[in-house]
Amino acid sequence: MFSVEEASAAILQRAETRAATRRGIVEACGLVLAEDVVSDVDSPPHDKAMVDGYALMAADLRGEIANLRVLEEVTAGSVPTQTVIAGTAIRIMTGAPIPSGANAVVMVEETRSTTNAGQDVVTIESTGIAAGANILPRATSLRKNDTVLTSGHLLRPMEIGLLAEVGRAEVDVVPAPRVAVLATGDELVPASESPADGQIRNSNGPLLQALVTRAGGIPRSLGIARDQPDALLEKIKLGLHEDILLLSGGVSAGVLDLVPAALAAAGVEQVFHKVELKPGKPLWFGCLIENHHPRLVFGLPGNPVSSLVCFELFVRPAIARMSGRRAGAPHHRTGLLTRGHSQRGNRPTYFPSILSEEEDRLTVSPIDWRGSADQRSLVRANGLALFPAGDHDYAAGDAVLTIPL
Amino acid sequence: MFSVEEASAAILQRAETRAATRRGIVEACGLVLAEDVVSDVDSPPHDKAMVDGYALMAADLRGEIANLRVLEEVTAGSVPTQTVIAGTAIRIMTGAPIPSGANAVVMVEETRSTTNAGQDVVTIESTGIAAGANILPRATSLRKNDTVLTSGHLLRPMEIGLLAEVGRAEVDVVPAPRVAVLATGDELVPASESPADGQIRNSNGPLLQALVTRAGGIPRSLGIARDQPDALLEKIKLGLHEDILLLSGGVSAGVLDLVPAALAAAGVEQVFHKVELKPGKPLWFGCLIENHHPRLVFGLPGNPVSSLVCFELFVRPAIARMSGRRAGAPHHRTGLLTRGHSQRGNRPTYFPSILSEEEDRLTVSPIDWRGSADQRSLVRANGLALFPAGDHDYAAGDAVLTIPL
Repeated sequence: MFSVEEASAAILQRAETRAATRRGIVEACGLVLAEDVVSDVDSPPHDKAMVDGYALMAADLRGEIANLRVLEEVTAGSVPTQTVIAGTAIRIMTGAPIPSGANAVVMVEETRSTTNAGQDVVTIESTGIAAGANILPRATSLRKNDTVLTSGHLLRPMEIGLLAEVGRAEVDVVPAPRVAVLATGDELVPASESPADGQIRNSNGPLLQALVTRAGGIPRSLGIARDQPDALLEKIKLGLHEDILLLSGGVSAGVLDLVPAALAAAGVEQVFHKVELKPGKPLWFGCLIENHHPRLVFGLPGNPVSSLVCFELFVRPAIARMSGRRAGAPHHRTGLLTRGHSQRGNRPTYFPSILSEEEDRLTVSPIDWRGSADQRSLVRANGLALFPAGDHDYAAGDAVLTIPL
Repeated sequence: MFSVEEASAAILQRAETRAATRRGIVEACGLVLAEDVVSDVDSPPHDKAMVDGYALMAADLRGEIANLRVLEEVTAGSVPTQTVIAGTAIRIMTGAPIPSGANAVVMVEETRSTTNAGQDVVTIESTGIAAGANILPRATSLRKNDTVLTSGHLLRPMEIGLLAEVGRAEVDVVPAPRVAVLATGDELVPASESPADGQIRNSNGPLLQALVTRAGGIPRSLGIARDQPDALLEKIKLGLHEDILLLSGGVSAGVLDLVPAALAAAGVEQVFHKVELKPGKPLWFGCLIENHHPRLVFGLPGNPVSSLVCFELFVRPAIARMSGRRAGAPHHRTGLLTRGHSQRGNRPTYFPSILSEEEDRLTVSPIDWRGSADQRSLVRANGLALFPAGDHDYAAGDAVLTIPL
């Protein structure tokens, strides 16, 4: 049986970054850049006013008070037409180019303007303005032909702004992986139907679709497959058109566990079956290489909480890797237990818990719950606490590793 | 001038939860529930096997070894037809109903099955199985007519699974707010065009659209409005069809700051103009009540970093509140500076920084950057560090508040 670490490594090794595609930059947010991006501009494009005010020669402000003749007013989007000389100033806006001759800008709030015989005059009482004041020199932030972002960079809103600045309305990115979701089992009916005796509703299908979306994938529901080899094989073949196929149910040791057989019939090679993990032990993982392009197949346990734990530990990192993100295993953060907890058995256990930021520490409260099918209690949890294998009684205040949900 | 706290309060007071709408549960993930949800089933619906194995009478296992006659096999989705009596067992799957007469289940891994003269027999060597073992009693998790989720609950993947289980394929939710984004300024050209002398590209428009998406809103781009009252008014009227209108630029003290005037002409009432904050001081906020439905209008500063800070502090919480989330101001978490930082001036400053989880503490490294327009340096940041108003020299190791980006 694989350990969690061995299972992770086997999965990530086969999770290949998807081929790049072109996207508009707003739609590209959240995806990983698949090209190096070079600027076609200097930024700022010219020596630039950092405030609204008057461009002038700093030398003119050596006295206690200066009265300067206003030559013109440069509005945003237009350029200065005159040259500042001693005793003159030009009114400019934040972001406007600095007129030639000027070497400082005084904020409008520190000035007084008057008109004297038709001539605009600005009066400045403040002193001590040095050359360069309130001016951002051309290309301070970036130079034309600089590489501003490299392939592999995750695009967040800040990167979208930068891409627009350097002239990119579209970019090559790694598209979100497509993930087929197939629930299996004769006992399942859709959420919209009333279960008869012995039946339950398919809650794993919607759960997994929502998890896929939250993990940055694009879910495709294949509905419910009955426990018949042909029906199962047909649905599996549909699912193998996508980058990842998630099956739910049908991988534990029961006689009707047809999923591994149907996957083999579809040409999917088993990589492992079962992981030293609780809940989630029956996890099945395999791979089909088609046109040199790997399709990953996960057979997830039928219980919702087992399914959730396997998704967070194994599927989410695979989606991240196929999306071009460097992510490996989920980030585990240490938290302090708020109460005792009894761990039993030889498998590491991920226990639904309430994580809470208190002051500067994270606290962890394992929830009261009633096993892998107890979805109602699960909605009180916002994380999983990891209790390593082996019998151990934890006390309040003990440190454990956690992952957020 | 409003403080950050006064500005937040003025905004949140006017941010009204949107009217509910009906959505399929997978699409509802990430939204807030707008109804109480009652279960139409017990869960589990019957006393249920928690493992694949044999249902039997615990009393039969008192000896060292038991050989039990197998009456039938109950597969998933079907129901037992026979009653377990002393000396017999029924093969069942995980999740299957417990046959009448049985009061325990033994895992298949702890059994051996043989066929003796056409009769299936199961041999069990383990002892000490108590009544109730591996059985989850009916309705352990939830009872029919229980309220399982209440209005106001944020729907995550776990809730989506629960909704499916209790028979809800669709639910009433608070829809995502719609947010119009309008950049203003004669100096702006779209990302796809080359700026002429004195022009720059509109990077705030794409930046804000991406921020809206990440905050859970639905952005609508209104492009660029020129610095002409009529053109501006026309675009503003379009934007007022949405729940929130974000304008970028045109609210600082320069002569061409036409935005407040155009907003007044459109009937938008100013709530405040300017906040004690750096960067972001020129923030304008107003409100238009139309059919008792408030539209919020933010005039954001034209510099990308100022715009980003105002968005995170004020717009994101407004989107959250309109989405039905209880969120107020952004969560500030304490981190420790990795190096000294000099804070000057009478406004609290949000400084772009690199936040890093190290062991169990958060470290904060303010980035080297060159003012509010320096988008290139900004992409190295993943958070903002808050330095309160007043001159102070911070040393490495000092604690500061942070918000993630």
